[in-house]
Amino acid sequence: MGGTKIAAGVVTPEGRILKETRYPTPASPGRLVESIARAILEVKDGFEVGGVCLAVAGLILARENKVIFSPNLHAVEGIPLKDELEPKIGLPLTLENDANAATWGEFRFGAGSEVDHLVFVALGTGIGGGVISHRMLVCGAQGSAGELGHVTIQATGPRCACGNRGCLEALASGTAIRRRARELASDHPNSALGRLAADRKVLGEDVTRLAREGDKVAIAVLAEAGRCLGIGLAGFVNIFNPEVIAVGGGAMAAGELILETAREEVHLRVRPPSRDLVEIKEATLGPRSGLLGAAALARDPSSGEYVLES
Amino acid sequence: MGGTKIAAGVVTPEGRILKETRYPTPASPGRLVESIARAILEVKDGFEVGGVCLAVAGLILARENKVIFSPNLHAVEGIPLKDELEPKIGLPLTLENDANAATWGEFRFGAGSEVDHLVFVALGTGIGGGVISHRMLVCGAQGSAGELGHVTIQATGPRCACGNRGCLEALASGTAIRRRARELASDHPNSALGRLAADRKVLGEDVTRLAREGDKVAIAVLAEAGRCLGIGLAGFVNIFNPEVIAVGGGAMAAGELILETAREEVHLRVRPPSRDLVEIKEATLGPRSGLLGAAALARDPSSGEYVLES
Repeated sequence: MGGTKIAAGVVTPEGRILKETRYPTPASPGRLVESIARAILEVKDGFEVGGVCLAVAGLILARENKVIFSPNLHAVEGIPLKDELEPKIGLPLTLENDANAATWGEFRFGAGSEVDHLVFVALGTGIGGGVISHRMLVCGAQGSAGELGHVTIQATGPRCACGNRGCLEALASGTAIRRRARELASDHPNSALGRLAADRKVLGEDVTRLAREGDKVAIAVLAEAGRCLGIGLAGFVNIFNPEVIAVGGGAMAAGELILETAREEVHLRVRPPSRDLVEIKEATLGPRSGLLGAAALARDPSSGEYVLES
Repeated sequence: MGGTKIAAGVVTPEGRILKETRYPTPASPGRLVESIARAILEVKDGFEVGGVCLAVAGLILARENKVIFSPNLHAVEGIPLKDELEPKIGLPLTLENDANAATWGEFRFGAGSEVDHLVFVALGTGIGGGVISHRMLVCGAQGSAGELGHVTIQATGPRCACGNRGCLEALASGTAIRRRARELASDHPNSALGRLAADRKVLGEDVTRLAREGDKVAIAVLAEAGRCLGIGLAGFVNIFNPEVIAVGGGAMAAGELILETAREEVHLRVRPPSRDLVEIKEATLGPRSGLLGAAALARDPSSGEYVLES
């Protein structure tokens, strides 16, 4: 469940999606619960379903099964989703942060399926993430771990949506890319990016397209975002010594235009052996990582800690 | 084992030290192995000892039981310590990074003994650290995880000993405190710190002493280090959602003179619920955390991953 849509699916233990549906996210809290329930009931019809995990774009308080902060989905904050939904759907339900669910998805079925230590970074409007350490999802004491977008990489940097300054998210997210594109467009009015910006508001996909067409200013915008991303990733390599860092999210449409400089920065900022081991690559499940991961997490709803036995 | 001394001890399962010895660290690789063996043989005499964990100030390659990088103890790099020591001591031996061992010590017997999620930061000449997540030591794929001093908090900041720029270690370690003290002393020649610096080289303990005596410049040096520390800790709170962050190491002689501003910075930079849960406090085991943690880790030498069952 995100700010614009609710996606529901029935998923096999092997990660095959048997049925899927999508609803727009309604604005009012009352209709929100109703829409989630309707989406679940619609897909589960005709299948033997054991449980549901609801992955939400927001901070989860695991103990209370409650979303306590969701910048793009305020309507969901504070609603006792488990208590309200379980009677409507007739199934046990757990909550998880969407990026944590996506991390579990990439670990079980995607870019991290062959490793024990994975960092997943979702590069979208904001930056989310999650960590698998020793085949276990790092949830933290309250289920709020994995906020990888909110590490400070430039203490004096720009203000972030979270209130902090110089967060990775403030410097390398889709939002940061658009902001920087507009700045560089006005510095370089004769570039393709500059000419477009004179015409209309520049979007993230414009930057990627113009960069692919060879516009040096658009290329520089993405390379700079990649450098900032790499500064954050370097820290994650030193903290977690992972085998793989998988980068997903909408901004990964730019792929290597971002990842190449990110890798360079990691190489500059990290020492062996961690530096030489880690593979920094695109996530492979695309927008379905959250759905697949949530379904896999639903199979272990009681533990509060998710461990995959090898 | 550190750059200046080798400490060995016999420790009970409950964390009581029955016997302890210390040797100076010799400079040559040949005599190093000999000194370690002698220290172990000396303390184990008369006790029933099941195994040894050697905690080393350096990067460990766990699979090979080898130290591959140790800036203050180059002699140890590349030596097959396990293979050379086991025949000499007649006991199974494992290697661990000293900060990881200290983390396990604080988790088992110290500041983190009542929680499941702990971040330990050792504030000394450099900054080391370790993480307990879900009662498990986060070791990473190669045993090199937990390098908490080498996350970038100011991308354009001063050069770090590791080669990177703007690492937490470059801004909040004992070394950073001394450097900043000398800078501010020359800016404020009439302060107590300034007068001392005109006389002789300023040491870390001078800064703490003068700050306790009320010198505003010395207080500012420690407060600034605390702010930098807090920027790093804020990131760890967002990444790990721990119940406790325990700060130890030599520079913690300054205690609240550093921790107070660190807490303020965490409060500014982190959102609830993680922010409201985390307790940032001094580690309680002092210089013995590494010895105690290593002994506890020695009880599980075969797994490579250390989990304490609740």
